[in-house]
Amino acid sequence: MNDVAPLLAALKTAVGADAVLTAASDLEGFTEDWRGRYKGSATCVVLPSNTAQVSAVVRLCVEQRVPVLPQGGNTSLCGGAVPPNEGVPPVIVNLSRMRRIRQIDAANGSMEVEAGCVLKTVQDAAAAQHRLYAVSLGAEGSCQIGGNLSTNAGGTGVLRYGNTRDNVLGLEAVLADGTVWNGLRTLRKDNTGLDLKHLFIGTEGTLGIITAATLKLHPLPTHHALAWFAPLDPAAALHVLGLFQAACGARLNAFEMINRRQLELVIEHVPERRDPFGEAHEWHVLVELADTHGGDEMADLLQRTLEQSAEAGLVVDAVVASNDTQRAALWEIRHSVSEANKKGGVGLTTDCAVPVSAVPAFIEQATRAVQAIVAGLDVLVVAHLGDGNAHFIPFFTFDAWRELADPAATAAALRRAVNDVAHELRGTFSAEHGVGQTGLTEMAHYKSAAELRLMRAVKQALDPHNLLNPGRLLP
Amino acid sequence: MNDVAPLLAALKTAVGADAVLTAASDLEGFTEDWRGRYKGSATCVVLPSNTAQVSAVVRLCVEQRVPVLPQGGNTSLCGGAVPPNEGVPPVIVNLSRMRRIRQIDAANGSMEVEAGCVLKTVQDAAAAQHRLYAVSLGAEGSCQIGGNLSTNAGGTGVLRYGNTRDNVLGLEAVLADGTVWNGLRTLRKDNTGLDLKHLFIGTEGTLGIITAATLKLHPLPTHHALAWFAPLDPAAALHVLGLFQAACGARLNAFEMINRRQLELVIEHVPERRDPFGEAHEWHVLVELADTHGGDEMADLLQRTLEQSAEAGLVVDAVVASNDTQRAALWEIRHSVSEANKKGGVGLTTDCAVPVSAVPAFIEQATRAVQAIVAGLDVLVVAHLGDGNAHFIPFFTFDAWRELADPAATAAALRRAVNDVAHELRGTFSAEHGVGQTGLTEMAHYKSAAELRLMRAVKQALDPHNLLNPGRLLP
Repeated sequence: MNDVAPLLAALKTAVGADAVLTAASDLEGFTEDWRGRYKGSATCVVLPSNTAQVSAVVRLCVEQRVPVLPQGGNTSLCGGAVPPNEGVPPVIVNLSRMRRIRQIDAANGSMEVEAGCVLKTVQDAAAAQHRLYAVSLGAEGSCQIGGNLSTNAGGTGVLRYGNTRDNVLGLEAVLADGTVWNGLRTLRKDNTGLDLKHLFIGTEGTLGIITAATLKLHPLPTHHALAWFAPLDPAAALHVLGLFQAACGARLNAFEMINRRQLELVIEHVPERRDPFGEAHEWHVLVELADTHGGDEMADLLQRTLEQSAEAGLVVDAVVASNDTQRAALWEIRHSVSEANKKGGVGLTTDCAVPVSAVPAFIEQATRAVQAIVAGLDVLVVAHLGDGNAHFIPFFTFDAWRELADPAATAAALRRAVNDVAHELRGTFSAEHGVGQTGLTEMAHYKSAAELRLMRAVKQALDPHNLLNPGRLLP
Repeated sequence: MNDVAPLLAALKTAVGADAVLTAASDLEGFTEDWRGRYKGSATCVVLPSNTAQVSAVVRLCVEQRVPVLPQGGNTSLCGGAVPPNEGVPPVIVNLSRMRRIRQIDAANGSMEVEAGCVLKTVQDAAAAQHRLYAVSLGAEGSCQIGGNLSTNAGGTGVLRYGNTRDNVLGLEAVLADGTVWNGLRTLRKDNTGLDLKHLFIGTEGTLGIITAATLKLHPLPTHHALAWFAPLDPAAALHVLGLFQAACGARLNAFEMINRRQLELVIEHVPERRDPFGEAHEWHVLVELADTHGGDEMADLLQRTLEQSAEAGLVVDAVVASNDTQRAALWEIRHSVSEANKKGGVGLTTDCAVPVSAVPAFIEQATRAVQAIVAGLDVLVVAHLGDGNAHFIPFFTFDAWRELADPAATAAALRRAVNDVAHELRGTFSAEHGVGQTGLTEMAHYKSAAELRLMRAVKQALDPHNLLNPGRLLP
């Protein structure tokens, strides 16, 4: 492309001059990710205020064959919302000004929100109506609904409520030719052809720009019961999970496992975090029940299931939170892992999922695989065990990392080794983080030819000029 | 097409002579639906035994440009599995010989089954492992998993567990060029691009032939509590639904409403069905709780919520089932509506869904709309109230039906009037039955141009020669 001036002028006419950023200093927060690992360049950043403006922007870009990169809270862990460094620099369409909650229908259990709404805002608005929007994750204070949908975000609510995909009833999206598709259904049932929303969920802005959504709301649980226990090993933890599912059914709200090394890092690097136990155990599980009704009855159920597990030799130690303060303190340990790992060294986070039944084998085999590459290497395990999603993290001290001859090559070899183990167990290399740019090599490596061909056929049909977030998701 | 002999010979070589039916008498059960409303013609019926054979059959048909019609239990309510009467007669690929349960992983909560498995067989196999396959519907004794998936079947489990779409983890499908796509994932989380299974779920065999699936299993509820109550009116029933959701959360297993005329028909035409009440009430709701744990506690919860509803003037009468026999007897009333309506007259079944909060308005407005066409016409209401799905049925005695000057025109006018009311309330004309052939006119009438264009673009990309179930689903 030669001269961007006419496009910039047209964009300013379409959305207002204050909504088109071009100065290098203004672009910084949009062209780099929050961890500072990826940086690219953009023609400009556009901040539309409504769906019609998004449509107008896409039409103008398509006319000029300038790529369009939709962006939400820019909290991606795989560089999905950061522009590339080659090709025509895209117009970044940042949705953050579109943050209206358009409607809440408590009786229907639905709310219509714009893509730029921050997740936490949505959760709070639902709770004010005694309803739950069930998606919950670390970045919830800054990530946006549009990004959650485009990446099918996971988090700690998946065990009970599913991924973001499972918590949405309808979408509004701007297509590659600028057409606005209004699919803002609020229905529980609608069997009238291809369910189009699934084209846009999890496809990271490559098939359209999500501008609004109708989200599904649940009854708000009012009672909680939580325990922290030490299972004998991951296989025992899995067995205990089965006992909880059989006894507690839909009350089971969380089942999160970490290993001892991970707990030690949290205690060492995050103030006020303590080991729940007097002695050092190898494995740790946080289990939580939640219900709209409960009190003693639910606490009894938790206690009894733990006792049954202990009698079977599956649990070697346990503490039960006796009030909300203790419950929050135990959750804080789990929520502190990212901070601890960042402070404590260099962790190579992976994001595999395997069948739930295969998690113990995955941990064992992945440990062996990475230690075959770097002898004696520490590994951290942070597993959403109930979902089969184990963040298996080969971990270096800063010193050890500096001593590596070729850190990038070592990191790549370790990640591949972990992903290979998952793949062998019928698992995936990306359970919840998405593909973005970091996963492209893995996509090419692990996906079948049939699968890639299908995805490319749909991409070609919906975005024939390859202008929506090109170079992402699909290798 | 001129001579089908070479194709028939090739098909016999591919799947065996006993698996290719050509005699007119052999085809009867496959070219007509179970209610005898639709009949078409077929080149032959092929009964493959495995996925490789399905692939071979599709390849042979594609070479000859002969359409392929996948078929399961042939229980469609909208003619989706019956061949057309015009164009090249299709090869019917009936999946009933592919009925292996390939694997059950109780710890992962998943099972892999072939498309021809009958739904009831799948439910029973799951229950034998203390797990629940949660899809349940009237035709479960003969409908097949492949058909359930292709139509995204609904039923009575949707309130708690979602539609068929929500109860599947992965698929295997044969594409329009004969390629086998193996997407038999058993994962709770997998964010690696477009979630391809949603292309095939609910698209009625127009984008590929589903040959197997991995289904999601839940903990098996072991305790139930059920009541039958008479709400003041549909708005009161909706209010009670809200009270149950707030108090009982995920225990709420069913919330089914029928009107008095519907109950009378059941009592009149089905042996051993009785009115649960001593006096005639206008509206009736069956509410059921289910849990993996319960007994007195859950019964108390049911009782208390009903009392609260009665005190608020929402419920005018109620009976609580005190044992499993009484529970079954109350469910039998609900399950007898199809039989009663068939015996009692001519019911024009519709399948609308609206937002749950709009069901009372839908019933009121639809009643007015149909009675504006036929004064004093009876209407039956059979509503999955918790899903917003109300089967609103304009109903004629056999005598009244015979006296109509143009029954087909009257039926079409009544159906359109009902669907118009749903559409005005942001609803759909097909909540769970699908489109098939009967819904084509409604698809063309109600769907936006953008929506039809998107669906056609995907169809064109995946089935460029329009050979998979042509003339169905998409107008």
